[in-house]
Order: sequence, then structure tokens, then C-alpha cells
Amino acid sequence: MKDTTYRSIFKWGDPAHNEVLEEGTLRYVKQIFNLTDSDVSEQYLAGNEKVALKKKSRLSSANLTALRKIVGADNVSADDYERAYHSYGKFYLDLLKLRLGRVDTPPDAVVYPRNEDDVIALVKFCNTKKIPITPFGGHSSVTRGVETPKGGISLDMTRHMNAVIRVNEANSSVTVQSGMYGPPLEQFLNSYKDGYTCGHFPQSFEFSTVGGWAVTRGAGQASTGYGKIEDMVLSMRMVTPRGVIVTKDYPACAMGPDIDQVLIGSEGAFGVVTEVTMKIRRYRPENTRYVSFIFREFSEAVRAMRECMQGGFGLPHLFRISDPEETDVAFKMKGMEGSFSDKMLQLLGYAPMKRCLMFVAVDGDKDYAKLVAKKISTVARRHGAFSTGAGPTKKWLAQRFSSAYLRDPMMDLGIMTDTLETAVSWENLLSLWSAVRGYITSRPNTVCMVHISHVYENGANLYFTFLSPIKKGDDINDFVKFHSGIIDTIHAHHGSLSHHHGVGRVMGPWMHSELGDTAIGLVQAVKDYCDPRGIMNPGGTLGLKR
Amino acid sequence: MKDTTYRSIFKWGDPAHNEVLEEGTLRYVKQIFNLTDSDVSEQYLAGNEKVALKKKSRLSSANLTALRKIVGADNVSADDYERAYHSYGKFYLDLLKLRLGRVDTPPDAVVYPRNEDDVIALVKFCNTKKIPITPFGGHSSVTRGVETPKGGISLDMTRHMNAVIRVNEANSSVTVQSGMYGPPLEQFLNSYKDGYTCGHFPQSFEFSTVGGWAVTRGAGQASTGYGKIEDMVLSMRMVTPRGVIVTKDYPACAMGPDIDQVLIGSEGAFGVVTEVTMKIRRYRPENTRYVSFIFREFSEAVRAMRECMQGGFGLPHLFRISDPEETDVAFKMKGMEGSFSDKMLQLLGYAPMKRCLMFVAVDGDKDYAKLVAKKISTVARRHGAFSTGAGPTKKWLAQRFSSAYLRDPMMDLGIMTDTLETAVSWENLLSLWSAVRGYITSRPNTVCMVHISHVYENGANLYFTFLSPIKKGDDINDFVKFHSGIIDTIHAHHGSLSHHHGVGRVMGPWMHSELGDTAIGLVQAVKDYCDPRGIMNPGGTLGLKR
Repeated sequence: MKDTTYRSIFKWGDPAHNEVLEEGTLRYVKQIFNLTDSDVSEQYLAGNEKVALKKKSRLSSANLTALRKIVGADNVSADDYERAYHSYGKFYLDLLKLRLGRVDTPPDAVVYPRNEDDVIALVKFCNTKKIPITPFGGHSSVTRGVETPKGGISLDMTRHMNAVIRVNEANSSVTVQSGMYGPPLEQFLNSYKDGYTCGHFPQSFEFSTVGGWAVTRGAGQASTGYGKIEDMVLSMRMVTPRGVIVTKDYPACAMGPDIDQVLIGSEGAFGVVTEVTMKIRRYRPENTRYVSFIFREFSEAVRAMRECMQGGFGLPHLFRISDPEETDVAFKMKGMEGSFSDKMLQLLGYAPMKRCLMFVAVDGDKDYAKLVAKKISTVARRHGAFSTGAGPTKKWLAQRFSSAYLRDPMMDLGIMTDTLETAVSWENLLSLWSAVRGYITSRPNTVCMVHISHVYENGANLYFTFLSPIKKGDDINDFVKFHSGIIDTIHAHHGSLSHHHGVGRVMGPWMHSELGDTAIGLVQAVKDYCDPRGIMNPGGTLGLKR
Repeated sequence: MKDTTYRSIFKWGDPAHNEVLEEGTLRYVKQIFNLTDSDVSEQYLAGNEKVALKKKSRLSSANLTALRKIVGADNVSADDYERAYHSYGKFYLDLLKLRLGRVDTPPDAVVYPRNEDDVIALVKFCNTKKIPITPFGGHSSVTRGVETPKGGISLDMTRHMNAVIRVNEANSSVTVQSGMYGPPLEQFLNSYKDGYTCGHFPQSFEFSTVGGWAVTRGAGQASTGYGKIEDMVLSMRMVTPRGVIVTKDYPACAMGPDIDQVLIGSEGAFGVVTEVTMKIRRYRPENTRYVSFIFREFSEAVRAMRECMQGGFGLPHLFRISDPEETDVAFKMKGMEGSFSDKMLQLLGYAPMKRCLMFVAVDGDKDYAKLVAKKISTVARRHGAFSTGAGPTKKWLAQRFSSAYLRDPMMDLGIMTDTLETAVSWENLLSLWSAVRGYITSRPNTVCMVHISHVYENGANLYFTFLSPIKKGDDINDFVKFHSGIIDTIHAHHGSLSHHHGVGRVMGPWMHSELGDTAIGLVQAVKDYCDPRGIMNPGGTLGLKR
């Protein structure tokens, strides 16, 4: 029988899989948060109740019939579970609300278009009837991007529109339907003729779609070498209430504003992406060079990283520094604390809560990978780093996607955990890091781990993860207040509202202050042009008025 | 006494300098176009008449007084020569019209703002009075981008707003006022501390400005390595009638549509760029590797170039192929035809009108430059190329900017010459090349030279240069008809309207067909938002309605 509990909705990954914390992680968490064995045996807000929505679908039966006529009866659902499933992404608050059995603003129906013609007909129909449409991909959004505060239909692109349309080897590109998930795309490309890769591996890779990557301006672990999604997209097709926008796969051009760069980041508020043509690269994992280092100080690691990015010797693909606390947690969770290696490192001056790990992987041509890795090693050593070999980077990569699964067992233990991320120029990086850490750790009993994971000549991304006990009974308010304070601190210290998660409804309220009157008005003008009746993902996404 | 002839306006470069064709070039031209010595001694439409405008300034004296109050009396001119000077860019038709003494739509006044506050006050005043404003930089536009068909003021940014504001070494960036020309910026950067470069060297480098680079989406000779201007700009300030847009220098972000990528390419139609913050790179000319090759066939050279771009071994900065006719002309002009080297090459199968030259330069770290040059050599040899050493590339670079000077003496000889350029995917490159060459060479007595000079993983730029006798007496119509046919052919064969010249009023009429109804409407919506009264560079630029 189908699992129709709230838990089945909020769980990351296969609902049948029951994620359990590793021994080292559990020991660490128990110690940090003073949890007893009995604490650990209970599940806080397990969400094992069956889904039951208070809010009934407000779509008239005439409208439901019309929708069924467009996409076929099997592809429209007003079922409670389906509607609840399409109510949230994977933001901490989404999970918390589902655990609390709260689904306040479900869509009125879920619709699964079969092709672009369906999407065109749906958008036309809904525009006439002023029925909101919210595009839905892998719903890994951590920005409340797929919520439906105005109801309407959740347009799930993943059931049918999930295939590769064509590979163009001459152009080194692939054209994909927007509802395709990462793994099937990557598997397809890896085994296509000589072997290709999409090069885009966000932590949500397994449960996010090509369309979602594009509309949120996502980034993957290898973005330092391959770029963010906006650097990879060559052209798109988007169905807007105003009409279909089709861009072309020129490698670059000078024909006014870049339309792709307007659609990328539109987060469903302008229209529905149906197809994306993106760059592909040769898949040659045998060439990849892995190195890792440990530095004595975060500032020194950052300096080395910057020097590498500005060195003019090519770029690594994965380039990452964990700050002292994240490094410390890694040592503890992996049971490294107090080990022989740890003692040796301490003797050499790499002290706990000061030392920092750096991970590097370089793809591409064999000699290129070798050269870049060697150059980075030289720079790192000049900044006092100790080389820790290929192992740590490979280990980190092997568990890369699994850390997303940890949130569920953490919340089961009554621990709230969330991540925020920002882009910042090199000039402001350390002061931002310090200010945000200061704010987060001012909360009692809170762990704040930071890493840099997307790096540029001119700055980098800072990624903050915190763990803190849930204030039980005041779960939502307490989180929202704390979380808002983090965004305020990032915003005040010259960080962007996001580097790759996007804006959604979480960052929306800061957009006016971030962009300024004239620029946010420009975004609104594009919205009003594409979507004059305000049916596309309405209700505050991107900080828009409608 | 100041030279106030039409010739002083249209001449490329210092008006005091009298450009003369090199012996080889002159011999070649005489031979191709059957010119006698007496033909060569005359100047066709020399433009030596003194400028006299039929159209008087339509600005009321009250408005002139108001403008003078804003920027100071010295910074407003309604003088005939100044107005004529600000009427055109450097498009072939611009030069022809000036030679014919035709200045049909001069601005009513020229205004030189001293700072951003002046620009804000001017935009506000002109918006109230509905006086058109057309921003004016180095006026090297070849798209009729700085023309003033609706009159109004030409806003010349170069007199005062031409300084470096700050260098930020940590961020590897420079903030520059929009009216600064290329050479002073580059000289400043080269000698700043450890030495930097802006990396942006369009052929117009000497006579184009930072603001012009940005608003036209320009590209320089080293774009294959450093990117186009849209890849270099980190942030901007633009004064629009709606208000000032100030973007931030994040290295990347995910905050909705990319505002910079809307302003870049706006060609003066949304507002006035006052400042640009752009990337800089370390200046290390001693590390640069130069190589060059000759291939047996164009298609083979193109295949090798594509393989290099997709090889994952790093990128050259300059990467260029001349097609068979351009290669042939180079041999002839340099007096190489029939030389010992030529004979040797022919013996080895590198035949005239089939063989192609490739130029390569790689900047950056010494080992990186060495590796990339070596990898390119390996690929080139695999495609049957003969290595011709560093010399040809260095020679080409040494005369890089001088070819822009050739147009004036050519026109003096009664030869029309113009360039068009396009971006195209690899898949469509050869068919586009062949179709456009076919069209151009169908005109009697016409030389068509093509090169590829900006290269990407997914395609490249094709750059067409033609030489053909002027149809004297029907100069303008004949050119327009021929030129339109070239654009039609590019457009029909999957080339973009421009890769880096921009749109202006020349490509404007094709924009609707190129972008499609919905996308051109989006650009118009942004225009209407930024400039509700239609005062910014009005009259068809970008294919806009106003």
C-alpha cells in the first residue's frame, strides 16, 4: 500500500529508505547537544500521520474538466496527497510544517503536461481563467519557490517532460526537456558515444531537474571549472502567458539585452521552461586529479585560494575550503580527533578550531589537470599548507550527495539545521564570514560550519550550515526569527541574498533593498509584460508584487 | 587653425595623420580593381569642404540656457562643427555621407557632463522637456548607434568622465568612468603596482570607450581567453529616466534575472552608463606564447580549432583563422606570393585559395601558456597543419589596429569596404561561411575575406570583409542594397545579427524576425519601463519602436 504519511513527503530521497546517522555523527551530535540514549530513541514530530487536507480544491468541476481535456484525465489530480506533495520544497520550514501536519496553501490541482503543446494550452486556459500556475520540478527548492500561496495548479514537469531531445556533438551541447532529473541525464551523457558530462552537480542533483537548475540560477560542485548553470545554458524555450520565447544557441552575441539571462533566474514567475540546450563536456574521469590540503588559518587558505583563481594557470573544477569549525566537525565525525594523524598535525601547528581543509579536483585533459593541480599545490605550500593527498577529496566526493539525507534524522532528534549561502567579493569575504558566524553562534548551543565551494577570480560563495536545538512548541517562530537575522547580517555585510539557491519567497522580502527601486521595478516590468494577469507562480516570489 | 572639414570628422585616427596604403597593398588594389596611376592620384569624394549644416539647432534658447546651467556654459555647444562631429559613427555609410557633405540629422546640441550628478540632472531635465539624449563615446559605432534621427542632445562622455575611479587588487577589478578610452586605461593598468591588463582589445581600441564597449556587447582580439565585455563587467551604474540603477560586484549570484546582462547591450536606449567595474588580469607579456600554422583547407582548420576549444586543456587568448581568400590577400599584400616560402608551401600541398592561416597567442602563467600552445600545435599537426612559428602572429598583432586606418585611403580610391560579423554554432559555421561568401562574391569584381576571431566551445564568430568598386553616383543606394543582402543571407543561414558590433539602427530592422514577437516585446517592455517618454537614443536603435 502506498505510504501517504506526511513523512513520506518531506523525506529526502527514496521514501522506502530509512536514513540513520553514522556512528561518529551520532556520537558527535549526542555530545554537542547533551542527548541521552532515550532522547535518541524517540522521533520528534515524526509526521507518521496520514495526509488529510483541510483546504478542499477550489477549482470548479468545469475547470477541472477543461484541464483534463487538455492533458488527459490521468494527468490531472485533485487528490489530497498529490496536492500536499506539491505544496512544499525542502526548506527547513517546509519540513517542519509537514511534520506538524500543516499544509496551509496546497495547490487546487496537480497537472502533468505531456509536451510543450500541453503547456501552451494550459497557460492559455489558465490565463483566461486567472488560475495560478506554479511550475514544479524536483521540488528541492529551499526558498519556498514551489509553494502555491494563491492556490491554482502545480505544474509537475517530471512525469512526462523528462527526456533528452538531442545531443549535438559538433556544438558540444544537449537539448533536454525541463523536467528531466540530474542522474538520468548524466547517465545518458556518460554513455553517449565517446562519453560526455553535464558538469552540473548541485547537492540536490538526484532530486532536481534541468528546468529547476535554470530558473533558480543553480550551481554544482564543479562550478569553479564548468561555471554556474547560467554559464552553461545556450538557449531555452519558455511558454509565457504573452507567448513562447525561443532563444538560439549562438555561442555569444551582441543583440541587445541577453534574453537567456532574463529567463534564467525567473523562478517560474515569467513562464514555464519547456526545453534547455546546455553545454556538455567530454567525460574523462580517468584524467581527474584530486588533491587536498590543510592550512593553519582560514584567512591563509582564503588567500591561497584567491591567488590560485587569479593565477592565470587554468581553473580547478571542484575547489573548496571548510572553515575551522566545519573542519573540526569533520575531524570529530570521522573519529579523527585524537588520532595519530591529528596529533602529528597539531605538532606541526595545524591546531583544532584554526586549521582548515581544502579539497581540489581538476577535470579535463590529463596534462591540464596535472598542471593545475601542481600549480595549486605550489601556491598552497607557499601559504603554509600541508598536503593531505587525494584521499580526503575522493572521500568527500563519495559522500557528496548523502549529507542532504542527514537533515531528516537530525530533525528527528529535535535539532534544527539549515543552510544559507551568499556570493561575496574577496574584499568582503572575511568580514562577512566573521559577522555571520558571530550572529549564528550567538544563539546558545549552536554549531556553525562554513565552507567556500564556488570560486571566481573576483570573489567566492560562502555557505553556512547551522545545527541548533529546536525550541519545541515555538518551532516555527523561533526558526523564522533566527533565520531572518542571518539574512539581515549577510545583507548588511555585502553578501548577495543568494549565490545559487535562488530567491523564492524566503529571500523575496529583501529584494527591494538588495536591488534598489529602479532595478526591482525593472524585474517587475518584465514580469508584468510576460504575465500581465499575474498567474505565473504568484505570491511574492522574487520579491515581486504579485 | 582648426580643421573643420568633413574629412576631419570621418577620418579614422588623428586628423593630422595622413594614412597612405603600403606599397604591397596599393599594388594589390591597383591590380584587382584595374586602377591606373592617374586613378590613384585622385581622391574620390575627399570631403575637403568645410562643414556647414543646413539644419539649425531646434533647441530653444531657454532650453540651451537650462542645459548650460546644469553643466556649465563651456560644456554645451550648438556649434555646426560640433554637431556634425556628433552625427555619425564609423559605419561605411556614415563616412560616405560625410564625404558627400550630407549631415541630415545632427543633434541640436552637444553636452559634456562633468560627473554623474550632471547626467542625473540632464536626464531629468530632458525627460521633462522630452528632449532626446543620445550617449556618445568614441563614436566608433558601425551600426549607426550614435546617430540622432530625432535630434536632441548628443551626450559626449569623453571630455570629463574619462578617469579610473579605483583599482581593487583583492577583487581583481577596476572601476572606470564610462567615457574613458582604451589606451589610457590599459596604460594605467599596465603600470599599476605589479601590472594589470584590461584584456579587452577591439579593433577600435584606440577610439572606443569603456561605456561603449559595455553597451554594445563588444569583444576584443583576446576574447577567446578573457571573454567578451559581458563576461568582464562585474557591475555598473546607469542613469535612466526612471532612476539610477546600481548593480553590485558579486562574482556571481542567484537573485532573479541578471540586471547587468539587461543593461549590457542596451546601446543607450535605456539610460546612460556612468561607471563600469570590470575584471582585470595580471599583465605578463613575457609569458605569452605565440604560434601560427597554415592548413591545407578551411574546413580542416575549423575542425582543428573546434577540437582545441573542446579539448579541456585551457584556452588561448587570441585564436584566429583567415579563410582562403583572406590568406591569399595577406600573401599578396605582404609580397609573399611567388616567394621561396610560398613555393615550398605549394610543394607541400598548401595551395593558394585553399590554404588558411591560423594565429594563436596564449597569455597567463608561463607553464599554462606553454601547455596550451603545445596542445594546440599537436591538434593542428594532426589536422595537417604546417607550423609557421611565432613570427606571423606577432606581425599580425603589431599591425592589429592599423587595418582600421585603411578604409579612408581605400574610399579615396573609389573602393567601398565594410565588415559584417556574426556568431554561429559549429554545426552551421561552414554552410554560413559558404552562403555569405557566395552572396558577396556574386557582386562583380568583389573581394571577400573572412576570418574567425572569437572562439567558443559551442561555436565561433565569422567576420566578413569585402572590397568592391563604389558605384559612383548611386553610392548610397547601391551599398545599402548590397549590404542588406548580406544581412539577409547571414540571418537565413543561422548566424546572429551580430557577435560584437551590436545592433544599432543598421541591424534594427531584422531584430523582430531574429528574436520573435515575444522576446522583442520583452526588450521593448524594459525600454518602456526605463524610459517611459522615449528620450533615450530614440529612433529605431535595437529595433525598438521609439
